[in-house]
Parts: sequence; structure tokens; C-alpha cells
Amino acid sequence: MEREALRALLEQVRRGEIDADAALERLARLPFVDTPNARIDTHRALRHGLPEVIFGAGKSADQIAEIAGALRAAEQPVLVTRVVPEAAPALLALLPEADYDAASRLLWIGPAEVAVLGRGTIAVVTAGTADLPVAYEAIGVARRFGNKVEAIFDVGVAGVHRLLAAGDTLREARVVIAVAGMEGALPSVVGGLVDRPVIAVPTSVGYGASFGGIAALLGMLTSCASNVTVVNIDNGFGAAYVATLINRL
Amino acid sequence: MEREALRALLEQVRRGEIDADAALERLARLPFVDTPNARIDTHRALRHGLPEVIFGAGKSADQIAEIAGALRAAEQPVLVTRVVPEAAPALLALLPEADYDAASRLLWIGPAEVAVLGRGTIAVVTAGTADLPVAYEAIGVARRFGNKVEAIFDVGVAGVHRLLAAGDTLREARVVIAVAGMEGALPSVVGGLVDRPVIAVPTSVGYGASFGGIAALLGMLTSCASNVTVVNIDNGFGAAYVATLINRL
Amino acid sequence: MEREALRALLEQVRRGEIDADAALERLARLPFVDTPNARIDTHRALRHGLPEVIFGAGKSADQIAEIAGALRAAEQPVLVTRVVPEAAPALLALLPEADYDAASRLLWIGPAEVAVLGRGTIAVVTAGTADLPVAYEAIGVARRFGNKVEAIFDVGVAGVHRLLAAGDTLREARVVIAVAGMEGALPSVVGGLVDRPVIAVPTSVGYGASFGGIAALLGMLTSCASNVTVVNIDNGFGAAYVATLINRL
Amino acid sequence: MEREALRALLEQVRRGEIDADAALERLARLPFVDTPNARIDTHRALRHGLPEVIFGAGKSADQIAEIAGALRAAEQPVLVTRVVPEAAPALLALLPEADYDAASRLLWIGPAEVAVLGRGTIAVVTAGTADLPVAYEAIGVARRFGNKVEAIFDVGVAGVHRLLAAGDTLREARVVIAVAGMEGALPSVVGGLVDRPVIAVPTSVGYGASFGGIAALLGMLTSCASNVTVVNIDNGFGAAYVATLINRL
Amino acid sequence: MEREALRALLEQVRRGEIDADAALERLARLPFVDTPNARIDTHRALRHGLPEVIFGAGKSADQIAEIAGALRAAEQPVLVTRVVPEAAPALLALLPEADYDAASRLLWIGPAEVAVLGRGTIAVVTAGTADLPVAYEAIGVARRFGNKVEAIFDVGVAGVHRLLAAGDTLREARVVIAVAGMEGALPSVVGGLVDRPVIAVPTSVGYGASFGGIAALLGMLTSCASNVTVVNIDNGFGAAYVATLINRL
Amino acid sequence: MEREALRALLEQVRRGEIDADAALERLARLPFVDTPNARIDTHRALRHGLPEVIFGAGKSADQIAEIAGALRAAEQPVLVTRVVPEAAPALLALLPEADYDAASRLLWIGPAEVAVLGRGTIAVVTAGTADLPVAYEAIGVARRFGNKVEAIFDVGVAGVHRLLAAGDTLREARVVIAVAGMEGALPSVVGGLVDRPVIAVPTSVGYGASFGGIAALLGMLTSCASNVTVVNIDNGFGAAYVATLINRL
Amino acid sequence: MEREALRALLEQVRRGEIDADAALERLARLPFVDTPNARIDTHRALRHGLPEVIFGAGKSADQIAEIAGALRAAEQPVLVTRVVPEAAPALLALLPEADYDAASRLLWIGPAEVAVLGRGTIAVVTAGTADLPVAYEAIGVARRFGNKVEAIFDVGVAGVHRLLAAGDTLREARVVIAVAGMEGALPSVVGGLVDRPVIAVPTSVGYGASFGGIAALLGMLTSCASNVTVVNIDNGFGAAYVATLINRL
Amino acid sequence: MEREALRALLEQVRRGEIDADAALERLARLPFVDTPNARIDTHRALRHGLPEVIFGAGKSADQIAEIAGALRAAEQPVLVTRVVPEAAPALLALLPEADYDAASRLLWIGPAEVAVLGRGTIAVVTAGTADLPVAYEAIGVARRFGNKVEAIFDVGVAGVHRLLAAGDTLREARVVIAVAGMEGALPSVVGGLVDRPVIAVPTSVGYGASFGGIAALLGMLTSCASNVTVVNIDNGFGAAYVATLINRL
Repeated sequence: MEREALRALLEQVRRGEIDADAALERLARLPFVDTPNARIDTHRALRHGLPEVIFGAGKSADQIAEIAGALRAAEQPVLVTRVVPEAAPALLALLPEADYDAASRLLWIGPAEVAVLGRGTIAVVTAGTADLPVAYEAIGVARRFGNKVEAIFDVGVAGVHRLLAAGDTLREARVVIAVAGMEGALPSVVGGLVDRPVIAVPTSVGYGASFGGIAALLGMLTSCASNVTVVNIDNGFGAAYVATLINRL
Repeated sequence: MEREALRALLEQVRRGEIDADAALERLARLPFVDTPNARIDTHRALRHGLPEVIFGAGKSADQIAEIAGALRAAEQPVLVTRVVPEAAPALLALLPEADYDAASRLLWIGPAEVAVLGRGTIAVVTAGTADLPVAYEAIGVARRFGNKVEAIFDVGVAGVHRLLAAGDTLREARVVIAVAGMEGALPSVVGGLVDRPVIAVPTSVGYGASFGGIAALLGMLTSCASNVTVVNIDNGFGAAYVATLINRL
Repeated sequence: MEREALRALLEQVRRGEIDADAALERLARLPFVDTPNARIDTHRALRHGLPEVIFGAGKSADQIAEIAGALRAAEQPVLVTRVVPEAAPALLALLPEADYDAASRLLWIGPAEVAVLGRGTIAVVTAGTADLPVAYEAIGVARRFGNKVEAIFDVGVAGVHRLLAAGDTLREARVVIAVAGMEGALPSVVGGLVDRPVIAVPTSVGYGASFGGIAALLGMLTSCASNVTVVNIDNGFGAAYVATLINRL
Repeated sequence: MEREALRALLEQVRRGEIDADAALERLARLPFVDTPNARIDTHRALRHGLPEVIFGAGKSADQIAEIAGALRAAEQPVLVTRVVPEAAPALLALLPEADYDAASRLLWIGPAEVAVLGRGTIAVVTAGTADLPVAYEAIGVARRFGNKVEAIFDVGVAGVHRLLAAGDTLREARVVIAVAGMEGALPSVVGGLVDRPVIAVPTSVGYGASFGGIAALLGMLTSCASNVTVVNIDNGFGAAYVATLINRL
Repeated sequence: MEREALRALLEQVRRGEIDADAALERLARLPFVDTPNARIDTHRALRHGLPEVIFGAGKSADQIAEIAGALRAAEQPVLVTRVVPEAAPALLALLPEADYDAASRLLWIGPAEVAVLGRGTIAVVTAGTADLPVAYEAIGVARRFGNKVEAIFDVGVAGVHRLLAAGDTLREARVVIAVAGMEGALPSVVGGLVDRPVIAVPTSVGYGASFGGIAALLGMLTSCASNVTVVNIDNGFGAAYVATLINRL
Repeated sequence: MEREALRALLEQVRRGEIDADAALERLARLPFVDTPNARIDTHRALRHGLPEVIFGAGKSADQIAEIAGALRAAEQPVLVTRVVPEAAPALLALLPEADYDAASRLLWIGPAEVAVLGRGTIAVVTAGTADLPVAYEAIGVARRFGNKVEAIFDVGVAGVHRLLAAGDTLREARVVIAVAGMEGALPSVVGGLVDRPVIAVPTSVGYGASFGGIAALLGMLTSCASNVTVVNIDNGFGAAYVATLINRL
Repeated sequence: MEREALRALLEQVRRGEIDADAALERLARLPFVDTPNARIDTHRALRHGLPEVIFGAGKSADQIAEIAGALRAAEQPVLVTRVVPEAAPALLALLPEADYDAASRLLWIGPAEVAVLGRGTIAVVTAGTADLPVAYEAIGVARRFGNKVEAIFDVGVAGVHRLLAAGDTLREARVVIAVAGMEGALPSVVGGLVDRPVIAVPTSVGYGASFGGIAALLGMLTSCASNVTVVNIDNGFGAAYVATLINRL
Repeated sequence: MEREALRALLEQVRRGEIDADAALERLARLPFVDTPNARIDTHRALRHGLPEVIFGAGKSADQIAEIAGALRAAEQPVLVTRVVPEAAPALLALLPEADYDAASRLLWIGPAEVAVLGRGTIAVVTAGTADLPVAYEAIGVARRFGNKVEAIFDVGVAGVHRLLAAGDTLREARVVIAVAGMEGALPSVVGGLVDRPVIAVPTSVGYGASFGGIAALLGMLTSCASNVTVVNIDNGFGAAYVATLINRL
């Protein structure tokens, strides 16, 4: 995309339709829009074929609304992650057309139904009840990105029969997201059961020696299953993002 | 696969061709072979559609040869990783049919040419010369697993024009493996350039505050590019494994 | 237990009383019950001979009540741990038959008196006053699990005569739980005084270089007494669980 | 300065204008002023040619006002950093002549306009919107210290074209301050684009494996760009201080 | 034991058979023997009912022989752990009656056959081939301490069917030792399969983010199975010691 | 002391004034008093010649009052540390005779004036204003323990002339307590200036890479001055305790 | 520089002297040269005005010689860092024109005398004798980059008078490099003495709690002197690089 | 001392016997001697009343001999620490008058007998045989510094009766050095037994979770005994240094 735009620009230069300085200017400034507090990459959606996503944590309602407005002006759907329930009312007042889901902490501006573009199913499997918020984020993002999702909850490895009972659902998925806190062993067992990529999401669930997710993170990075890759602690969004890319291949 | 075998076994039981105890026995013992020191999972290859791989570090030549022999008896190709040059002669004496490559530290027993089964290309991109051993492992494994590979070396982010010049190769790949030590920033920049999954491999290259790859690992886990997942430090093999699964989708 | 159930099921298949698909279904789904947010392992109590325990921290009152309800429907006693005093009223409103103890943060639904099943006594010994909440959790769980418990408080090693004075009580126990924060040296000294297993519980008590229990945890893991094993920081429940299993041998 | 004062003092002693004991006294006590809670270094401003700065975090309004008063009595401008908006009213009540800016958390007592003493421009570049508070601190301090500042916001490396578009501004600066959280890769890319010193400021922005800025800090310390030095996490002030010294050379 | 000795001593004092000073002397010095470099606790064997064990790592052959000699003089069997093969010849020259086993790195002076004192079986289960040295230490110590041992090797959780096939052996044990490196998930799965105490031994096997056993250690400490306790990294001896105490109950 | 008591007791046994069992009882229980939540070591004051101290953090007002009451009943003065201002009123209501000082967070029950028992002066020197609370704790404890104290505030090493000016006071002290956060360099410089023991107290003052006092702690432990020993982060009390013992020699 | 080249290229396009595709090609590939194992950035020297530097650690003699050859072909001087004495002979055999210095571990190919381009002096100050190798690297690099250097050795802060005696040399420098291991306090004291930028280099000198340079690194990052920035542990080269850039301003 | 020299110098200036510049020169340069690689602080011995000590690790035999020569020229005794047996012959060849002791790794040049200057006894107590090298360093240094030393070896807390038996020796000491690795609990128990300062020395003895002495270090820093201060891991020298200063009070 960028390369074609660049080639077109160079052709314009060659035909004398635009001079070098102006070309330079356009060359640099095309693929984003500046607002007072952000330089928004409006072309990323086109490049990746996905709506732009705003990481909501640590941004004020005004900052989020400013960025969302610029994206909406470019007629793009907008997904905001990590909107805690306390922050939602102020944001909904500024963005009345938005749809907010407290369980996944996602705020969405776009069509109510998203066309399914993924070629298969994404399975999201979690170890315990406390991992649900991260799983809901992954599920919500994956659905907004046009994927069919199968959810399997509370199948931690200390009762491995619960997981084995879900074997068919896992094996039928095109890609699996495995969400677990504490010792984070779920992706290793899941990885041994399926022949698809497994994206492991460590969660900050646990206490003491789980150190806010470090135990789970290290466990997943050192998994003895070879088909496991890892994203950041609690990063349900990132897992869904990569799963979407894989599911479109 | 397993489920079908299980169903067949249950049908045999139902038809009275095998009694419950024997079924129980077969049910449990089918998918592996016991050697004195290992319980070898001979069906993993079938399940994942990939040759069995032996992690060579920390195993004696005798242990490796014992496992390889069991796998060869099952007529499977065998790939041994992390065979340092000093260990190769003893291993080649025990496994004379094997092919050893010092740069990737891989030992291979199987057909000289592997049929290409991957649907696209895997790009392997590295930040610096010192990251090459890990990259060679990823490349060697990916090729033995039936993938076309494009290699782009020495394009660290402190000279970002070198990376941009490789943009076309990157964008044409179906999946990208980005290998980097020190600050590990390469996957973030690569992730912004392509719309495919990027598998980040931190390396133990560096000194001081790189802490044997921790700096790169943390950098990759906290990447601001959403299409990045991470494997263990120096785990070129794991990256190639997952890339293969993705490339076959 | 499971194996017998499995054998019975296979026998039913052999006799044609159930077909393979149905058997497969039952095989997978027997030992748990699904609620909207959890897959409850109702058979664990049977397998381990202990009531099911709900880790209360990080779960909403509704989630706890939902799980407790499913367990009660299976006529099992229920023990909920880590119920802080602030969370108790909402929970008691949903589970009016429950009994709550603020010191141990335990909520119990079941018989007021539990039959003693343990063959000897469990001694619970603590280093300081600030370790009491963890000790109370261990004591409360051990009693609800049918053990006689002896408590010895505030016998930290900087006044070792206080501990020596309790030597008889310690030596008469079948298993000892040693609870300590700060430098966590208590289990080492206790371990030298008794010839029974000592379960060490590091607590998050302390400040500065105790790093929320890390100093005590490391101290216990590297204890020079050979009869010491360790559980997670503040995990009074886990210590009581294992002590119960040992006390029933 | 000090040396000259010392030489003058020794000359006085030599000429008998002051005796040894008194000289000793003056020698020790000259370059600071004692208040009840602080020993204020009133000569640092002279030595470094910069106003004295009070680190506001962890000090009470009374303590800050006491120190500021002593400095004002010495006719020096005063800059207080890390004054959170909640703390400002109490401080402004005590120091009514002060000027407070919430975005940079800076409180200033001195001339409204500061003469430009820096020989060139300081560029302040940030990776994301959440890094803005640290950037505003750096910008505010640099301006109060007499520098021209160019600000470039939200040009993180996952959309590297946004950064490249700002190349001219960066290259025209005499020194660059690069502010980034998460993986902290911005200074590496900036360092490759410019031939000036780059002062990297890791921020505590991020979650999970960013560990409150550690990931960014390690990434910057291990940067593959050789023209990068690093200051403490969130230390916008320190970066501006050093940039000012460099800009006056 | 000690208490009885103390009571006897006090009785002697009461009867005037020994004066206070001499009593004091004996009171303090009874339960150990001094050699030039060690104060050997010869009564620990009596107290714990187990032979004295010398931790061989970091001691010279002379030091080990000195301590072993004192113990032999007290007619106790002696077990030396962590005797690497390189150190064995020098030690065997000094202790010609000793029996050395290279796989377990154990040196034994005592009866060739040890009477079985344990009431049941100790199962030792390992995740991978590289964990074998630690498992052999646990097995060797357990056997020398008078236990029947069942060994189950190479049943890591990424091929969970291998572990399930060993279910009967596991369930028949009185206590289980689970040895695993890398992510250390084995004890969690084993803990869910059995209703006995599981002693988890993290090993230093792995690379990168396994950090010499930290990943496995943290995973085991945060295990979601409640019947798991943990010993130090690579501490096969300690696990066997505690398992022995439990197996004698 | 204890030894004499023990000898006296043994003499009583010898003379038949007390039988062995009773002696055993007294032998064990003499040097402490049990309250419901604590086993108070009432003899420590006698052994160390210092009042008993209660660490107030993490204890309820009731617990503190219970312990203080038992100590008062033994006619000992009582010092409670870490009583934050919010906790003081409840405590003063229970202990109306107590004297509370908010700056040092110390609560004292005992004579208003303590006799000076220390043979020289203890100098307490601090790096910055934010270190004052820890310094005040050290000063208050040292005075209540009967020492003369000289305080030198705000003499951090970045303005080393401020410290040099206090050289005489430092050199005249019998022992020096050096309190510093951030890089914790003060004890190294002080250690070079004096020929007395320097007790270094790292404080949690700082941000970012000070990691709650770790930077200061490591700096002090690795001090290039040989006369420096270190106590826990923020442990002003411990420093004063040891300084008192030294000052009485 | 790049921008001018880009503008010239665009002008060529505009004048029709080169077509868009060829321009695209040249645009991307200009500023580096590919060798089998490296993509060498030959323009960095031009951009930064400094010779290209090869980090020698972890590269084979062949790899270094290959890169050096490409750079020499571009008629650039070459500096190789971290060439340990053991590696030098093989390298000198391949690069006979090179000059090797064991103390600084630097290998140089270029003019024996480098013209002085720096406007002032760089002072290199070290805390202890063991820090000398890092200091020699900094000095050697700074001289090869065209700077006058003043060296001040062994002036650690525990004997601060040694440092004060060097005050004039320090104050006359344009930029100071402070090298220290252990507690790393030297830059703080130096920073208070001079009004110039201080580049702090932590070294891995020390033992125990210096943790290979972490103590010094953290101490420097949290320095109470505001004019200090930090580079990686043992990174004498990086400090000299930035000092050179500053000294040319 | 310094102060008197300074006063004398100022008097010389006042009397005109020396001019200001020369005074300045002498003022700065008096208390050290420069050799090519070191700035030796020859007055520290005078200031502290102790021989100068050279930390031998990481210095070449030539460097040590150079420094020792300068100190000998000043007629001071010299003590070199951390001289491993392999390094001793080369050093003894350069310093033939030196006396070397392999157990303590100390090299001494000075009188064979050192006069006892300490007022009491220093007790050195160790937990295990492997801690002996550190204890020998402490003992050797303390004796060379003029102290009487009592050594108590191998009295770790897992057999606390061994320690109690040494109670008299401990209580008679003026200061105690407690040396321990692993969990480092010894100083806590010792601290409770004596009313003197206890200097705790963590050692790097141990494996796994002892992390090279970190477990012991943290345990000692968080000791529940108030009379404990801590030095760096394995720093027997530093403990003896401080103990000497205390013993001379």
C-alpha cells in the first residue's frame, strides 16, 4: 500500500505535477493525522486490515475522545480497550454513539455486527474464574475483528480431565488463545493436545510467588510445548490481534 | 487423530474384539515408546505433522542416539537441536547417517531434500551479526520442516534505513521471525511495517544491562506493535516451529 | 476411583448397554459440573476425601455463591478462603447458612462439628504476632478438615528459649506447620527439633528487604534442616491441606 | 568559583586579616544556608549557572515553602518539580507569587520570561500519549532554564514513518531528549537518525512486563545506538538539566 | 529423646551423683562431636531415625573423610550427596569401604541392603530426560533410607497422555516426588491425579527464561493443586528426606 | 544472667528443694510471659539492658496495648515504633500515660527524662530532607535508650562541602548513623572521614530505579569504605539499637 | 546529509534523469554495503562524523576482518572494541596493518595520529584500580575520535580528599566521564563539583551485592546530582562516543 | 588528625612561611601518594589506626606489588585480602618478605606478632563447614588488626543445641561476627543470645534459591534480632574491620 502510494508520488514528481519540496512534504506526512496530543496512524487500519485500537488505560476521557474523533472523521470503526467501569460514563457522555461492555472493558464505535472474515474458529481457553476479565477482552476483541470464537472456561491443569473433555473444541480451532495466571501451565498442556499455534496470555492472577504474573509469564516462555508463543501479562487484546492475523491467512 | 483412534478402540470393545482391561492398557500406552531413559512420544509427529525434535543440550551422545534410534525405528525423520560443534563427532559416530550443520547447530536424519509444505515464505530478520546463531537455527529448522525462507541480516533499528530497504521482502512473507538481542527493538519496528504475525526471538547477545537476554525479552513482551508474540530467549527452534504451523494454515 | 468408573463404563460399552459415542461423551464429562462462570470439579472432594475449597480473593460474591450453590447441590460442605471482613456481609446475605470467622477469613457451609479423621495432631507454630492471620487460616482449615490442632504463637528465633519451651508440643505432633515472615528462620530451628515433616509458610510480614515475603521464602527454601518443604507466601490453606493428607496416612 | 573564594580566604589569612580558626569556620560554612530541616546549597546556582530546583515529591508544603523562602531571600529564582495538582493549592497559598503548571507539575517563582541562553534547540520527542507528563516536565524545565524547545509527540517506533517525518526537526536540534515507556525503543531509532547526543528518559508507562519502567530502562541502557545516555525512570527534569548544560557549551 | 536424657541428667543432679557444673557441661555438650572443622550432630540420626548425610558439594575430600570418620566411629551409616564423578576417586581412596554411584552422585558407607522401613511406596516422576540426575538422587536417597521406590520418567505435561498412562502407579504411592525443570508444570497435573502429598522438586534444567530453575520454582510455588509443597532447586535429597518421614508415619 | 539463673535452679534441684519435673517446667518458662496473642520476652530488657520495643506496624491498637500492658506490669518502660499519626489517637486512648511524637512515629511509656548511659555521642547524618522520618526514628530511639545525639541534616554527597563542614561533629562521635535514600552514597563518604563504626540506613526515598530503597541498600552493602555495616531499609530503630550497644562499650 | 541526497534524487526524478523504479531502488539501498554476514552502515561515519566502530566481543576473527575489509574499502578508519588479548593474534594476522592496545582492548586501523577535533578536554575519572580497563577503553576511544583527554585514577569517594585534589582538572574539562564499580558513588560527588555534563559508567567491578554492576548502575541512575547521565555497565566506548559528540558542539 | 594538619598549614600561611598557592597545593595533595595505577591513601592507616589493606581480587601481581611497595616505603604494614592460592607464588616472588596463609587467603607484610589493642574478644561463629573460608578471612584480619579472637564453627540453627552449648563464649565476647550461607538464620539466633553488637556476614554458600548469597543476605537484613547489622556477601574482611573499631572503643 505504502509502496504504491510512494510510486504514485514519484510518478507525479517525474511528470512535473508536483515539485520536489512538496513531494517531500507529502511523502513524510501522508499516513497519519496530528491532533494536539497525538499523531494518529490512520493508515494502520488499511495496512493491517483492522480497525484502529486505542489503549484506554492512562488516557483521560478527553484524550480518548479526541483520538476517537479523528479516527471517526476518517470513517473508521474505533475500539478502545481497558476502559474500567468507573471511566465509562464520562467517555460515553463524550462518545454517545459508543457501545460499552463492562466484562471485557471494551468500548466500540462501529457496526453492531461485524462481518466474519476469519477463516476458522479461535478457541479461548482459561485456567480459572479469576482469569475471566482477560479472556473476555480477548474474546471481545476477536469478535469485533471478525472472528468466530469458542470459549472454554475454568479448565486448569490441576483437574486435567476438565480440559481433556474440551479436546474436540480445541482441536477444531484454527488458533488457540490460552489464558492462565498462577503457574501458567495451561498452554503447555493445551499445546500438547492441538497441532495449531497456541498464544499464551499470562495473567496477573495469583498472590505471593506469582509476583503479579511473573510466574505465569516465565512458565509460558519456558513451555515444553513447541507450538506456544507468549504475549505480555494480561494482554488479551494482543493475543486476539495476532490470532486474528493468523485466522485470516 | 487421537480421538479417531480412541473411537476405533471403543468400537472394538463394543464388538467384543478386545476386553476392557486390554482396551484400558492400549488406551493408555499407545502413543509413546519407552526406552531406558525416555518415554518417546512417537505420535507427536503425526499429531502435529512434523518430525520429532530432540533438544540436544544437556543430553549425552548416548541418550540422544538412544532416542533417535527409537524414532528411526518408527521410520520418522529426526532433528536434533543445540548440538555444539564439540559434541558433534561423538554423535556422528553413533548416528553415521546423520547430517550436521555447525552454524545452526542442527543434526538431521532424514531426506536430504524436504518437500515444501508451507503455503508462503517465512522471513527471518536479525538485528546484528551476533544474533546469527539463533537465526541460523530458526532458518535451518524452518527449512527442514518444509518452508521457503528469506533471510535478512544485520538490520538493527539504529540504522533504520537498512531495515526499510528490506520492506518488500518482509511484506511478502506469510509470517516473520524477528531475532534481536540488546534492547530487542527490532520486532516493534518490523511489526509496524507488516500486516502478518511477527514472532520475536530475544537473544542473549549483549552485556551489562542486557542481563543475558532479559532486556530484549522485556522489550519484546512490551512491544507497542500489536502483531508481535514472543518465545524464550535464544529459542530459534520454537519460533520456526510456530511459524511452520502458521505457514501451513 | 476414576479408573473404576472408567472400567465400569468400558464394561457397559462391551455389553452393548451404551454405544461408543455416548461413552465418549460420558467419559469426558463425568467429573465436573458447568456453571456459567466455572467448571466445578465435584469429584475432587471424593478423590481427595476433602471438602471442595473456593479461593475467595478476586471473586465476586455472586461468583462465589454460584459455585457454592453448585457444590451444595452435590451435598458437599464448602469452605471459602480469603474472605476479608469487608466482603463477608454480601456473601452472608447470599449464603445465609454459612458460618464466617474474621480472624481466619474463612467462610464455612457444613456441619458445625467436623469429625476428627486425622490420626495425630498438627502443630501450628508462628514467629510473630503479625503472622497470626496466616496461622489462623491454617488452623481453621485444618480443623474443618478434621484434624486436632495445637497452636504455638510468637516464638521467633531471636528469643529461642521461647521456642524450646514448646518443644514437647512440637515433638508430639504428627506434622508441623511453621509460619514466619521477615527472615523466615523459624522452620529451620523447628526442623532441627522434631523428626516429623515441617511445612514452612513464608508470610508477607515485614518491610524493606523482606520484599513482601521473598526473604522468608528464600530462607525457607534454603533451610539447612532437611525435613522442611515450602508453600507459597501467606498460603496457610495449602499448608493445612497437605498437613491433612499427611495426618491421614 | 569555590577555588577563587578559597584562594581569597587564604590570602586574608596570610595578610593576618582573619585568624586560622575563623578561616576554618568560614571555609566550611560558606556555600550553604541552614534552615531547620535543610542545608540549602545556595551556591549551586552560581556554580552551575542555573536556578536551584526543589524536588517536590515527598516534601510537605511547609518544607517546600521553607526552602523556597531561603532561596528567595538569596534572590534566586526557584523551580519546584513533581508538584501534583492536589498539592498545588496549599503551596500557592504559602507562595502566592508562584506560577503553577499542572501538565508539567512545575511550580516556578521567577521572571515570567527567561532569557534564552542555550545556543541551539533542544528537541523533546515522545513515543506515546501516556508519556506526555514526563515530556512536559522536560519541556517546562528546559524552557525555564533558558532553552528553545521543539516538541514532537506520539511517534513510537511501531509506526516508524511518523518519526521519519520529523527527521528535520530532530536533525536541527543541538541535543535530543527521547521519552518512551513500554519497550523504550524510541531512543535507539532516534539515535540512528541524528548525530547529536540523545538523552533517553524511560517512563513508567506500560503494564505487565514493563515492570514500572524497567523494560524501557534496560532497553535504553542496551541501545545499539552509541549516542544514547540514560537518566532515571520518569526523570524529565534530569534530562532537561543535562540537555541545558550541553546546549550552553 | 533429648527430653528424656535431660530428665535423666536432672535426676542424677537431684541424687547428687553429679554436681551442677558438670551437669551443665554435659547438658550442653552431649549431642555432637567436635572435629577440627566441624561440630558433628551424631544424635540427629537417632532423633530422626535416619543416617547422617553429608552435603558433598563445596567440601574437600579431606573434610568429607574427616566427618565420615567421626560418624563411622559412632557406628552410623554415612551418605554423602553431590559427589561429582571427578571428585569420587580421591574420596574412595580415603574411604575404601564406600560405595559410589555416578548417576545419583551418592557415596554410601553402610550395609549393601537397607531394610525397608517405609510403609508404602514413594513414586518419583520426572518431566524430561535432563531432569534425571536430580531424580536419581531422590531415588537413591529414598532407597538408602529404607523405602520402596517406583520411578516414572519423561512424562512432561506437553504430552499429557504419557503421564495419564502412569496413573495407577501414581495413585498407589503413599507420597509422590515430582521433578521438573523448564515451566515446572508437572506437579500441578500430578497433584490433580492423586490424593497424596506431592513434593515438587524444581530443577535447573532449561535455558533463557528458566533462569536456572526460577521459572520452575515459581510455577511450583503457585501451583493450582493444593497438595503440592516445594523444596529447593535440584534438591532431590531433601525431597527424599521428607518423603521418607511421611512414608514412615 | 540466664546461665546464673540456670545454675541456681540446678543447685535447687541438687539440694532437693525442687524436683526434676518442676525444674524442667521452670527451666522452660521463666524468661517470658504469655498473653493471648503474644509470648512476651520480659527478660530481653534485662539481658540487653534496654527497654522492650514493640514494632507497631501491622499490629492493632488492642494488640499493642495488650503487650504494653504486660510489659508495664513487669515495670518496664515501653517503646512502640512505627505508630503513624492516624493510629496514635486510638492507642493513646488505651494507653493514656503514653507520650507520642509524630515526627519520629514513636510512642513512649516511661520516665520523661532518660538517664544518659552512653559513653559518647551518636551522630545521625542524613542525605536529604525526605530522609528525615527515618532519621527522627533513629534519633528518638537513641535518646530514649540513654544516648546523647548530634543531628546533621541534608548533607548529601552531590554538595560534598556541606558534609565536610560537619567533619568535626562527625569525628567527635563514638558511632555514626548515616541515613540516605536514592544512591545511598553518604555512608561511603562519611566512612572515609571518620575512624568509627558507621551504621548505614538505606531509606525508601526516591523513585524509578531506586526501587523502594534497593539502590541505596546495594550501594551501602558494596561501599568502598570498610567501616560501614548496614541495616534494613528504613530501619532507623535497628541502627539506633546497635549504636546504643556500641556506645555503651 | 540524507535529506540532501534525497532531495537531489527527487530532483533527478523530476528532470527525468532517472525513472521512479530506479529511484526507489537507490533510495532504499544507498547507505550501506552488504557482506555475507553483515549489512554495513558505511554512511554512519559521515552522518556522525566519526569512524565506524566494530563491537568485537562475540564475533569471530573472520567476521571482524570481513567487516573491517568492507569499511577499509570505503577508505574509512576502523576501530574494533573488546578485543581480548587472546583474540588479538588471530585478528592481527588477518589485519596486519592494525594497531592493537591490550590495556584498552582496542584495535585500530587508521592514521597513527588523529587530528584533535574536540573543542575542549574530556576528563576520565575512576574510583578504583579495578575500574581501569573500562577507563582505558573510554580514553582510547576518545583519543582515536580526536579528543584531548585528562585521566584521574583511583579517587574513590571513601577517601574524598583524593578527589577534591583533582578539582581543577575536573572543572577545566568540557565533559567528564566518571567510571566506578561497587556502590558507584563517584559520579554523584563529581557531579556536585563541576558544572558540566557527567557521563557515568558503572563497571562490573565488585562482588556479592554488587551483582556484576547492578549496584553501581542503580546508584548512578538515582544520583542526587542532576548533571549525571548513565550508559550501560562497562560501556567505556559509549561514554567516549557521547563525550565526543558533546565536545564537538 | 587531618584537622590538626590543616590548622598547622593555615598557621604557616598566617605566619607567611608559605604562600597561598603552595598551601593550596599541599592542602590537596598531602594525604596520598600517586603510583602509575593508583592514588594510595597513606594516611588512612593513621586516621583509622589500622594498616592499609589491599583488596587482592581483580588486581595483577604487579599492581599489588606496586601498591604494597609504596605503602612499605611509608613504613606501614600491608595486608592483602583475597589472594587465591594460585596467585600466591607470583606475589611471593615479588614480595619475598610477605607471609601467606592459604586458608584465609591473606598475605601479610609486617611484624609476625601484632600487639593486642582490642579491649575484649571478638567471637567468630559460623553455620557450616562451607562457610569456613569467609570465617578464616575474618579471623585472620581481626588478629592482624590486634584482636583476640574466639572461633566457634559449624553451629547452624538446624541443630540449635550445638549453638547453645557455645553460649558462654558468645556472651563473653565484646562483639560477635556471625557467618552463614543458605538461609542465613544464625545471626538472628545469636543476636537473641547476646547483648552485644552482632555483625552478620552472608556467604555465597548454597545452591538453587540461595542465589549466590542473596537468601542469606535478605534473611540477615530482615532479622528479628535488633542487634544485628550486615556487611556484603562473603565480606569477612569488612566484618573484622568494623569489629576491630568496636573492640577498641
